[in-house]
Amino acid sequence: MKLAVIGVGLIGGSFALALKKAKAVSHVVGVGRSAANLELAQERGIVDSIANDAGDADVVLVAAPVGQYPRIFASLASSKAIITDAGSTKRDVVALGRHLRRFVPGHPIAGAEKSGAAAASADLFRDRRVVLTPTKESDGDAVSKVEGLWKACGARVSRMTAEEHDQVLAAVSHLPHLLAYGLVHEVATRANSEQLFSFAAGGFRDFTRIASSHPEMWRDICIANRDLLLSELKKYRGKVEAMERLLQAGDAAGLEKLFAEAREARERWLKSSS
Amino acid sequence: MKLAVIGVGLIGGSFALALKKAKAVSHVVGVGRSAANLELAQERGIVDSIANDAGDADVVLVAAPVGQYPRIFASLASSKAIITDAGSTKRDVVALGRHLRRFVPGHPIAGAEKSGAAAASADLFRDRRVVLTPTKESDGDAVSKVEGLWKACGARVSRMTAEEHDQVLAAVSHLPHLLAYGLVHEVATRANSEQLFSFAAGGFRDFTRIASSHPEMWRDICIANRDLLLSELKKYRGKVEAMERLLQAGDAAGLEKLFAEAREARERWLKSSS
Repeated sequence: MKLAVIGVGLIGGSFALALKKAKAVSHVVGVGRSAANLELAQERGIVDSIANDAGDADVVLVAAPVGQYPRIFASLASSKAIITDAGSTKRDVVALGRHLRRFVPGHPIAGAEKSGAAAASADLFRDRRVVLTPTKESDGDAVSKVEGLWKACGARVSRMTAEEHDQVLAAVSHLPHLLAYGLVHEVATRANSEQLFSFAAGGFRDFTRIASSHPEMWRDICIANRDLLLSELKKYRGKVEAMERLLQAGDAAGLEKLFAEAREARERWLKSSS
Repeated sequence: MKLAVIGVGLIGGSFALALKKAKAVSHVVGVGRSAANLELAQERGIVDSIANDAGDADVVLVAAPVGQYPRIFASLASSKAIITDAGSTKRDVVALGRHLRRFVPGHPIAGAEKSGAAAASADLFRDRRVVLTPTKESDGDAVSKVEGLWKACGARVSRMTAEEHDQVLAAVSHLPHLLAYGLVHEVATRANSEQLFSFAAGGFRDFTRIASSHPEMWRDICIANRDLLLSELKKYRGKVEAMERLLQAGDAAGLEKLFAEAREARERWLKSSS
């Protein structure tokens, strides 16, 4: 099995390493814009060769920013390979890839604080979620093949529609990113921002960790998913307004109830996901 | 120097341990509601003796929930000791302690995920911020003495008014706690909450870590500081509405600018605080 990875960064590089470790690929070809990154990928044994395109690969993983998909997908228009991707939004990607013969849209839900081939690891996807969003037109064999590869990486694979994926991720990923960026921006633009930051502690640091995420990537995600993200923002504002009413009324019992319910739900989640 | 600690938990116990390590106290007496916790504190060498009140201590640290202050402060009404505290809000504590002779209100800004004497550590306050909020009536010698003790714990001590303290903490601590509780509660009360949680990843976990904080403690903090917290919520809602307008307009450049400014401010803060 010959694999081509377009974009040999944290995600693409880790996919290649995991499949090599599982002996699920015989050859990996790396495609990308940065020669230095591709050379590093070859040095680290992530890719076996470097090329300008996917060539005669059996499977192609597109792990580049979604902004580059139109160009990349155009270059794959006549490909007979199974093509999958790792983009964070799926409705837009499904639309972009409609003309591809054997396309299986996917999204590995794995952290992206570090980047580049230097950060790739064979264990990145172990016990992580991967969502595939095949359409009615998707080739069933191709979907099974891609599912098998992600399982070989140790991931837990789910299938849902692109719409469902984008809704779920809007709530638990895109919304918190926006809220964290917003809080840091709010503090940073105050007249006394230096003082405020100097008394911020561990709670603030963890709450805002995702505000150190890549601005261009998150711009693209927010724009691609903006209708569902706006609907999440509206619901969240409703919750904030409810908390404001509790504060205004001095409703200590109501606040404690809300806090206790949230804490309990979070503890339950941590237990079930560990 | 004889120290009494009322409430020998994470904060009170760590204060005692740090001062013992610095050889700044000769005897520590522990006061509290839980006999088991006090016995553990004695076993761990945090306190040298256990008593029902502060007795003839030179310095008293009140490290109990603020809800217990009226009772504790009443018991200290005729005390000649220097009295300080560790409460998270300061305007209410200043008002409650107005009748004490030598009171120095304080707030060590140190994590509180763990609790009890079992979690106490001599190094908890190393390089952490401690804010003292003396009033015009405060005894200057008492303030210097308390400042010296916190410095002996390795802390960085600042002085500000109770009002200023409550404003700063509303922005960088109380607001993010409320926002994190709100997000978890919102997700937990959706019809598909199980699905939503099952696709939440590391970003969500860190963003919501503070939603595992103690509900009663945070109820009291929010109620005590509710005017300033409401004002912070209003400003934050303004920022969220500004982001909604950028999304509605599809203003990719505007979103990226906001994200990049936030990320840059956060990175600057991390560098300056490390």
